[in-house]
Amino acid sequence: MEKTLAELAKLTGAELRNGEGVVIKGIGEISSAGPDQITFLENIKYKHWLKDCKAAAVISRELSDLAGRPALISDDPYLAFAKVTAVFYYGGLAAPTGVDKRATIAADAVLGQGAVVGAGAVIGARAEIGRGTVVHPLAFVGEDSRLGQDCLIYPGAVIRERCYLSDRVIVHPNAVIGSDGFGYAPEKKKWRKIPQSGRVVIEDDVEIGAGVCIDRGAIGDTVVGRGSKLDNLIQVAHNVKIGEDCAFAAQSGFSGSSQIGDRVTMGGQVGMVGHITIGDDAMIAAQSGVAKSVPDKTAVFGSPARPMSEARRINALLGRLPELFERLQELEDGFDAGKDKKKDD
Amino acid sequence: MEKTLAELAKLTGAELRNGEGVVIKGIGEISSAGPDQITFLENIKYKHWLKDCKAAAVISRELSDLAGRPALISDDPYLAFAKVTAVFYYGGLAAPTGVDKRATIAADAVLGQGAVVGAGAVIGARAEIGRGTVVHPLAFVGEDSRLGQDCLIYPGAVIRERCYLSDRVIVHPNAVIGSDGFGYAPEKKKWRKIPQSGRVVIEDDVEIGAGVCIDRGAIGDTVVGRGSKLDNLIQVAHNVKIGEDCAFAAQSGFSGSSQIGDRVTMGGQVGMVGHITIGDDAMIAAQSGVAKSVPDKTAVFGSPARPMSEARRINALLGRLPELFERLQELEDGFDAGKDKKKDD
Amino acid sequence: MEKTLAELAKLTGAELRNGEGVVIKGIGEISSAGPDQITFLENIKYKHWLKDCKAAAVISRELSDLAGRPALISDDPYLAFAKVTAVFYYGGLAAPTGVDKRATIAADAVLGQGAVVGAGAVIGARAEIGRGTVVHPLAFVGEDSRLGQDCLIYPGAVIRERCYLSDRVIVHPNAVIGSDGFGYAPEKKKWRKIPQSGRVVIEDDVEIGAGVCIDRGAIGDTVVGRGSKLDNLIQVAHNVKIGEDCAFAAQSGFSGSSQIGDRVTMGGQVGMVGHITIGDDAMIAAQSGVAKSVPDKTAVFGSPARPMSEARRINALLGRLPELFERLQELEDGFDAGKDKKKDD
Repeated sequence: MEKTLAELAKLTGAELRNGEGVVIKGIGEISSAGPDQITFLENIKYKHWLKDCKAAAVISRELSDLAGRPALISDDPYLAFAKVTAVFYYGGLAAPTGVDKRATIAADAVLGQGAVVGAGAVIGARAEIGRGTVVHPLAFVGEDSRLGQDCLIYPGAVIRERCYLSDRVIVHPNAVIGSDGFGYAPEKKKWRKIPQSGRVVIEDDVEIGAGVCIDRGAIGDTVVGRGSKLDNLIQVAHNVKIGEDCAFAAQSGFSGSSQIGDRVTMGGQVGMVGHITIGDDAMIAAQSGVAKSVPDKTAVFGSPARPMSEARRINALLGRLPELFERLQELEDGFDAGKDKKKDD
Repeated sequence: MEKTLAELAKLTGAELRNGEGVVIKGIGEISSAGPDQITFLENIKYKHWLKDCKAAAVISRELSDLAGRPALISDDPYLAFAKVTAVFYYGGLAAPTGVDKRATIAADAVLGQGAVVGAGAVIGARAEIGRGTVVHPLAFVGEDSRLGQDCLIYPGAVIRERCYLSDRVIVHPNAVIGSDGFGYAPEKKKWRKIPQSGRVVIEDDVEIGAGVCIDRGAIGDTVVGRGSKLDNLIQVAHNVKIGEDCAFAAQSGFSGSSQIGDRVTMGGQVGMVGHITIGDDAMIAAQSGVAKSVPDKTAVFGSPARPMSEARRINALLGRLPELFERLQELEDGFDAGKDKKKDD
Repeated sequence: MEKTLAELAKLTGAELRNGEGVVIKGIGEISSAGPDQITFLENIKYKHWLKDCKAAAVISRELSDLAGRPALISDDPYLAFAKVTAVFYYGGLAAPTGVDKRATIAADAVLGQGAVVGAGAVIGARAEIGRGTVVHPLAFVGEDSRLGQDCLIYPGAVIRERCYLSDRVIVHPNAVIGSDGFGYAPEKKKWRKIPQSGRVVIEDDVEIGAGVCIDRGAIGDTVVGRGSKLDNLIQVAHNVKIGEDCAFAAQSGFSGSSQIGDRVTMGGQVGMVGHITIGDDAMIAAQSGVAKSVPDKTAVFGSPARPMSEARRINALLGRLPELFERLQELEDGFDAGKDKKKDD
């Protein structure tokens, strides 16, 4: 794959700055790109890398630091970069097409126009696969499940029966959607399984990370709202409702029936008890253990989680506990000495 | 699917209370059930929902709050509900039968009567699949592994060679049973792999959540005892012995050779060092880090875990650390002032 | 499978000590081995088990406690044990060979001599599978990915496109290599996906646990260095660089672009923020939350992590917080009493 910078400018709609004949063969990181690669600078925090950057060209906003370098200038460098990636990365991959003869598709399943089903994938009875949706090899879509348009279901992903994915949903490898919720009734010191007959509903533009597990509702639905992004190995228990445009880092866990607002962000390895509400625009720091509801626009941290400023203060004071004990000891000694002195008086 | 309330009463053995001709088309949550659904009220904590509940009928214990509502009354509402779920949920699903022609089954594997093997599933040499056990599509059962009767092995589950599952074991999607334990001998600052030649033994009525990983013993067995329930994404290291009727929430991890008693319950994201013993009926709160053995009937919390009451007290005092520092400062100031005053005297 | 102790001595190169005609039928733990099994004693901490050990023979270093027992004596008992395991454990398993007719292999994929591809496995276009590498059933290797020699790819493992695994890499069941990194640009309170066009590079002799997820670089590579061992359910974000001969326990998570040195060891459930550096030979205790870089040869603990000795001291003092509050109260009371007394004077 080779493109001149001029060709890439045309393709991306970015403004060509110097070096129109420069030949680009791939994409590289600003810190390590080679002389036949194009690189990408969005965050000006990293502009000091430009000095030693060997890349043939840079995709960037207007920036004086570029000096006379060959560049593609754009107000939306991410978009330009995405288009360049489409050329050099995805352009080199075979676009999957059609239904592999080694896929197993129920006779009454419904495939939309341009839907793709890879080798070894299994599509259950009455399942619907929307237009342009790609079910990669070895993925599973259960009975009565419905996938919208232009979804990407990666290898090994399991979508059990009666789940609903809307449009442009991405499910990464080995994620599980629609497993039974963890519901048992205690009975004479044993556990009796409570049937889990609800669904999982995934709205438009959601991305589900590799190895994520989203349980179906006990009754009713587990929901992930439009545009929310879940990193790898996250656990979502039954009847959790996640709002829109959230972003959760890896390995976090949501206990049953918790309600998450819109635009909530969470660091990794956060845990959350069940039946609480996290307000819109709340921020939960990594490894927090959230034991009660969090209001809108509130940042919390710690296990158990406290408001961020309080948690930070406590954490700083924790580091001073040895000093505290010493000061207390000194005070006690001084006080005792005072008393002794008085006695002596 | 439609049933009259009278039909459901007969089917569940519950007592019909009003509205025998009411037609039920599905199951709904008490908070959101529609007028053609039946709902379920077990926990009287939620009986206030009845007021605005639009469901056609309720499955419940005897309860005055039901007033004149159409209802199915049972001393065991979970059982009645499970039977109704069997009608409306599982009743609508195709009962899997037989061995799919796209399954790969070793010539010397042994399948019990009524055993089911789905498309793409792979059954290794000499493996035994018990009567009525369902191996869903794309699941893997390795050489010499033995599964008892009426097990459910969901899509993508991997049971490696020489593992033993007893009867009525449920393995959720993409769980892994029998992976190598994490065992290495340090050797000149490198790691040499120690062969992991033990088994995993899963006793009757155990449920293994989606994405759970249970390593085989180094030598000897890793064991999950009868009736224990493991939520999603739990890690069980080599030679762990889990007792009977335990329940562990998601994302917890057990290090090697830990011994867990009977009826132990754990919140999510608990971690545990190896070679310790957790007593019968112990309770471990979410996100705890258990660094030493826990006696019978003891609740612990925190990282490192402490007895529950102590952990709670410490946690409350943590919130008062800023106050503590202030009080100490005041005392020091007062004390110094006193000394100064004395000096001045 | 049966071997005399004399046969095993020959096979392992260990020194036969007593009982050359003793017949061995399998391997057992020192605590529970039966009278037809051979057991293994490496750590002399466990030599007290010998007293009641019923095993027919012991593999061990020279040790007076063995007394007159039948034994195989070796300066490298792990190696002798590994060879015995090869006989009794792997010896009983069918050595996988050839390419199963139910595997799906792209016409232009390249398989080395002796490469094995199991039933249902899928190998993408232009992928290369090295000599002697075993791709187990239902594993997936994407387009343009290259696997070196003598790798083991277990069932359900997913290696996406354009990843590179060197020689003798082991990937356990349902691990995911090459999933998209978690990269989004905020845009009007929504998240826009940033293409993830880098690779994952896994060097020689690395072991990747079951359910582990390793994301591909955004641009550039995510790297796991030679000889490093990752336990189950670990998360490795995009562009993380892990050094050589590291060992990480289960369920830990590395955020994007973190740099891990050589010979770093970590307990389970550790979390790490992005863009930090962990020095060579650093040790990170279980459940730590590492929020800033850690120097070489440094041990840290806690969330947020502190140097080990400090963290331990703080943890001990935490347990004395109730005492601290009491002492402070007493001091305040005494001080007030003193003031009152003075007033009274």
